[in-house]
Amino acid sequence: MNSGIPTTLPVSEVAELRIPYNQLRDFLAAILIKIGFTPDRARECASMFTDVSLDGVHSHGINRFPRFVRAVRNGVVNPNAMPELVSRFGALERWDGHRGVGNLNARHAMDRAMALGQEHGIGCVALANTNHWMRGGAYGWQAADAGLIGMCWTNTMPNVPPWGSAEPRIGNNPLIVAIPRKQGHLVLDIAMSQFSYGALEAYRLRGEMLPVPGGFNREGELTCDPAEIEKSSRHLTIGYWKGSGLAIMLDLLGAVLSGGLATHQIPGDSERETSLSQVFLTIDPTCLSPAEEVDEAANQLVDNLHGASPLPGTSVRYPGEQVLKTRKENMERGIPVNPAIWKQIQQL
Amino acid sequence: MNSGIPTTLPVSEVAELRIPYNQLRDFLAAILIKIGFTPDRARECASMFTDVSLDGVHSHGINRFPRFVRAVRNGVVNPNAMPELVSRFGALERWDGHRGVGNLNARHAMDRAMALGQEHGIGCVALANTNHWMRGGAYGWQAADAGLIGMCWTNTMPNVPPWGSAEPRIGNNPLIVAIPRKQGHLVLDIAMSQFSYGALEAYRLRGEMLPVPGGFNREGELTCDPAEIEKSSRHLTIGYWKGSGLAIMLDLLGAVLSGGLATHQIPGDSERETSLSQVFLTIDPTCLSPAEEVDEAANQLVDNLHGASPLPGTSVRYPGEQVLKTRKENMERGIPVNPAIWKQIQQL
Repeated sequence: MNSGIPTTLPVSEVAELRIPYNQLRDFLAAILIKIGFTPDRARECASMFTDVSLDGVHSHGINRFPRFVRAVRNGVVNPNAMPELVSRFGALERWDGHRGVGNLNARHAMDRAMALGQEHGIGCVALANTNHWMRGGAYGWQAADAGLIGMCWTNTMPNVPPWGSAEPRIGNNPLIVAIPRKQGHLVLDIAMSQFSYGALEAYRLRGEMLPVPGGFNREGELTCDPAEIEKSSRHLTIGYWKGSGLAIMLDLLGAVLSGGLATHQIPGDSERETSLSQVFLTIDPTCLSPAEEVDEAANQLVDNLHGASPLPGTSVRYPGEQVLKTRKENMERGIPVNPAIWKQIQQL
Repeated sequence: MNSGIPTTLPVSEVAELRIPYNQLRDFLAAILIKIGFTPDRARECASMFTDVSLDGVHSHGINRFPRFVRAVRNGVVNPNAMPELVSRFGALERWDGHRGVGNLNARHAMDRAMALGQEHGIGCVALANTNHWMRGGAYGWQAADAGLIGMCWTNTMPNVPPWGSAEPRIGNNPLIVAIPRKQGHLVLDIAMSQFSYGALEAYRLRGEMLPVPGGFNREGELTCDPAEIEKSSRHLTIGYWKGSGLAIMLDLLGAVLSGGLATHQIPGDSERETSLSQVFLTIDPTCLSPAEEVDEAANQLVDNLHGASPLPGTSVRYPGEQVLKTRKENMERGIPVNPAIWKQIQQL
């Protein structure tokens, strides 16, 4: 496959490898077609992976692509399965993802939740039997881009210990909350572990320690070393018992509403993780207030945050603040790609 | 006011002061009538305060009662203001709390959200201009007791610094998630600070250090001393930047949906805190699955948690697990009351 991108790089250029958006997307799409996607779905799925890296979230963008391709090849993800409506009541719908492509299923589920939200003021779609949705924040941006408040969450395989145990029995279950704003949406995307697996990987790939303890090492001591936590699987949940409790509730909500699996029923192997349960919830704020008032409330809150005196070496930012700037820069300069990951992708 | 309860206690009995439910409720109700409540509302409000202490959450039960009485007396809380429907669309409603009684307003708002959830599968009420709801978990129990999933949150006055600053500009904005279960609901009730003001107060009243750091002292060092954090107002948000971000989103959601104030617009003085914005959201899971299936999913999840090997000196519990046991014990033996608080209440 000739991508026009050099496959070997002088050391001095390692940190500077940037690939233009279209070129990267087309390269990924070609791989997806090769492993069984139809051209349309390959292009949509590849765009979603590329969008995530465009926004600077490499851990759930192209850095995750090789694992995704393995999941398709080993049968965990069915590239051509389409989500199916199982039941509905009022502003609620339940869908079956049929173990299809996680990001495509999630985008479809949020689309449905958005239609329900516009019809009823609030809407909710629960999705069973789906796969990893990659960057959860993408579905928050999707809702906010349409002027809707979006909330969504997913369960995962057991990968974090509940408070009071060292056994990884709960999921890190990312939660996303998005509020539309003309000048830049507020989008929060947080896993219930202090650091997501993707974030740990990114720190490790950059050779950096975590800024605060992210878990326990095998000896049961708190540590800032991402590799130690990856080895022990003893991630710290946010706020100790609080994040543990929230992870439990998000998991059960997903399982109960979708009729699908809870974390304890999902295989605890990152290569076999599948049949996740997800919830997509939207509210149309313009059912109650003009969009200008929503913007004005958000702008005032942002201005107040920006007015806080920063601690030395830091700044106060709203959730999602850096995304538009990163997106613009990466669209202009090309998407930064980790050379080791790029090499893996070229060999897929 | 003759309550039949001794007002001075021998030292040996200090830790053993327990007051029967009805006696405590009637005592509180009589005080509320004295400060301007109608008898029916006095009884309901007093019951809600007593229920909170019955469940063992003293910091937001009777320990908070003296401050609540001050808020009525100084005009912050209007005891006879009734919540009013402002607008509605589909499964969404917006209400104005008219600076009425926080717990009565919140119960009413959750009642409406429950009716909307039963009609549309999912329902949401946003409430502006209300006052402190005391124990947020109460409204989760309220929804779950009716077989509904309940989520609710409130904003607060600025009382926690956003990540990156030492200025308390965001609220600790408690979030509640409740899932009904025949054998005991799962109810999570978490403030976005590692410890709520009420919890810090409770630790301080018991003369205990916090089990994990809860904030910074005036010198900017992490500390487990509740009094130091009360002095500095530098509470730690759960998961550092993550809880800070979630607090910001919950605040803006409340303000945008209710049309009311955001944290930065609320007076930063615990004696003048008012005009809060709250959101009450319900989902009726029986619109999609029989109640037995919901119970079964919850039971399996609980069984799995209970099967985790506990770390030494701990146990793995689901959110809300201790409540029914505490409630039963306190109903049988009387509600434990801190003698210093009891003395304050008797002087109201």
